[in-house]
Amino acid sequence: MVTLTEVARRARVTAATVSNVLRNREKVRPETAERVLSAIRELGYRPNLNARALAEGRSSTLAMMLGNIANPFYPEFVLAAERAARRAGYFLMVCNTDDDAETGRAYLTQVAGTLAEGVIVLNTDIAINELCASAAIGAPIVLSLWEHPESPPGLPCVAVDFARAGALAATHLLELGHREIGMLVGDGCGGLQDARANGFREVMRASGIEPDAAAVLQIRDSIDAGYEACIQLMSNTPDLTAIFATNDLLAIGAMQALAALGRQVPEDVSVIGITDIQLAHQVRPALTTVAINTSEIAALSIDLLIQLMQKERVDVSPPMLQGPPPKLVVRQSTCAPKRPG
Amino acid sequence: MVTLTEVARRARVTAATVSNVLRNREKVRPETAERVLSAIRELGYRPNLNARALAEGRSSTLAMMLGNIANPFYPEFVLAAERAARRAGYFLMVCNTDDDAETGRAYLTQVAGTLAEGVIVLNTDIAINELCASAAIGAPIVLSLWEHPESPPGLPCVAVDFARAGALAATHLLELGHREIGMLVGDGCGGLQDARANGFREVMRASGIEPDAAAVLQIRDSIDAGYEACIQLMSNTPDLTAIFATNDLLAIGAMQALAALGRQVPEDVSVIGITDIQLAHQVRPALTTVAINTSEIAALSIDLLIQLMQKERVDVSPPMLQGPPPKLVVRQSTCAPKRPG
Repeated sequence: MVTLTEVARRARVTAATVSNVLRNREKVRPETAERVLSAIRELGYRPNLNARALAEGRSSTLAMMLGNIANPFYPEFVLAAERAARRAGYFLMVCNTDDDAETGRAYLTQVAGTLAEGVIVLNTDIAINELCASAAIGAPIVLSLWEHPESPPGLPCVAVDFARAGALAATHLLELGHREIGMLVGDGCGGLQDARANGFREVMRASGIEPDAAAVLQIRDSIDAGYEACIQLMSNTPDLTAIFATNDLLAIGAMQALAALGRQVPEDVSVIGITDIQLAHQVRPALTTVAINTSEIAALSIDLLIQLMQKERVDVSPPMLQGPPPKLVVRQSTCAPKRPG
Repeated sequence: MVTLTEVARRARVTAATVSNVLRNREKVRPETAERVLSAIRELGYRPNLNARALAEGRSSTLAMMLGNIANPFYPEFVLAAERAARRAGYFLMVCNTDDDAETGRAYLTQVAGTLAEGVIVLNTDIAINELCASAAIGAPIVLSLWEHPESPPGLPCVAVDFARAGALAATHLLELGHREIGMLVGDGCGGLQDARANGFREVMRASGIEPDAAAVLQIRDSIDAGYEACIQLMSNTPDLTAIFATNDLLAIGAMQALAALGRQVPEDVSVIGITDIQLAHQVRPALTTVAINTSEIAALSIDLLIQLMQKERVDVSPPMLQGPPPKLVVRQSTCAPKRPG
């Protein structure tokens, strides 16, 4: 078994430097790091991270708990988070709760404080007070994509101003001249996306528009659900000239439903979503949406978690960072209505 | 700090039973498991998996190395693999190499044998001989989605008969009456998808059809690349009545390009892919494709890995399991050509 000391000797550095290269390459000069990596390769050295974790009281691994990795939003978030974690010298373990609170709890019990040194929780069905209880005795937890910046959750979090995202969507549709607007409100594993819906409604009301109750549907957060709901929406209220969906999956499903109904997007009906997942620019017509900058939020969440793990923060109350402000991205799925309302 | 013994006492079972519940719930009677889980919850017991891993020489974690989690194929694979791992009492750590061989090697060095007890490698740019070298000194490695069942890689693997998938696509298009067929061949992080293309070509040739060189394009494995390539394909060879893509992302991009060109799918041009990712049934028209049963392949891979880890196999040479046979799934993107060739 090759030891760290042998690697250090061959690379003509101290053992501490080898450890730094393994843990946080940025702290070491590139030429030195290259020499250490060569020595590691030549000797076939394999750091025993579990042993080191125990010895140092840390395990080099972060965990990310999320509802369902097959929802196209999450892989993009995971990708960005993993890049941020890797830059800081950590592995990222993805724990998929399958939208099941019991599974989430089982993961939390085993992961927090033992297998992982810190945990990012995305939308799951685990209650906030359970997360707080876990964080109190185990590894730090950061709640990411918190939808209610006006009321901090009592846990460190990264909040996103989703109400503002909804407001931006409303303003865009109003400025184009839309007055008959339907809403698809997602009800995913993170709960009802009501901050987005309320932000949208507020702007509408300020313009004297109260959405027709028949033109608002609450549905699961998926393309298939968006498709079905849009068919129903257009049958309830056929005069709609625009549809606002609280996320891109619903919006994409709605666009497909409109195509199936023989309604042109955007000429007959405009569609706008929220998030800007990859698919948003890949579908045709490309989706107008309000981008929330997933990558930056993921990186912020990882950074906050690592600060908490390393006790670099001395906050009086749990910190709440604000994600970057949502931004309107106008593509091809919205235009002025044929007959302005 | 609550101990395992206290949990055992409260649940009126032996410590070994508690350990079994934590590790492999299926070995324990449901009522007993429920009692143990209640005791764990009530006492706030938190198993120290790192300590246990060291004590037992195992770490309860499997790693999955893949090129890019944001390719929509992988999340579905990860979801299925994680479910299979969880059923067997393991966590699944997802290591994303970002399609970079150097990053892949760094992960492999640290993960195999220390942080994870076994590794599943999906398409990455790491050479087979490097994987073999790693497996010889560290944790077992299973190569999943091996595309060449006719030549085993020298590592335990789960192979998929992708040539057969290509052949099924060819037979479908031929039976519909297509003769002028374009090909989009993916060149992803797992290398050129030539087994699929060759399987397709063989069936074509058996019918006396040699694809026009101008009607075959090799491209990166993404919706955007499929879109661009299809525009070029239709400009090279405008008389095509069908397009075969070696994966669904390319096929979906091609369908969007055809729509942008004003060509109806399937009336003007039929499109068929391979894989059957979620999006295949979610796009409109829904994509005809050859399904490779991702979930079953993922589960097979996890099962094989665990057998190797537990030394339950005494194979003379590295085992190669066959994934389930590919299956044609006819949806709305293919039909007979207007003017049969």
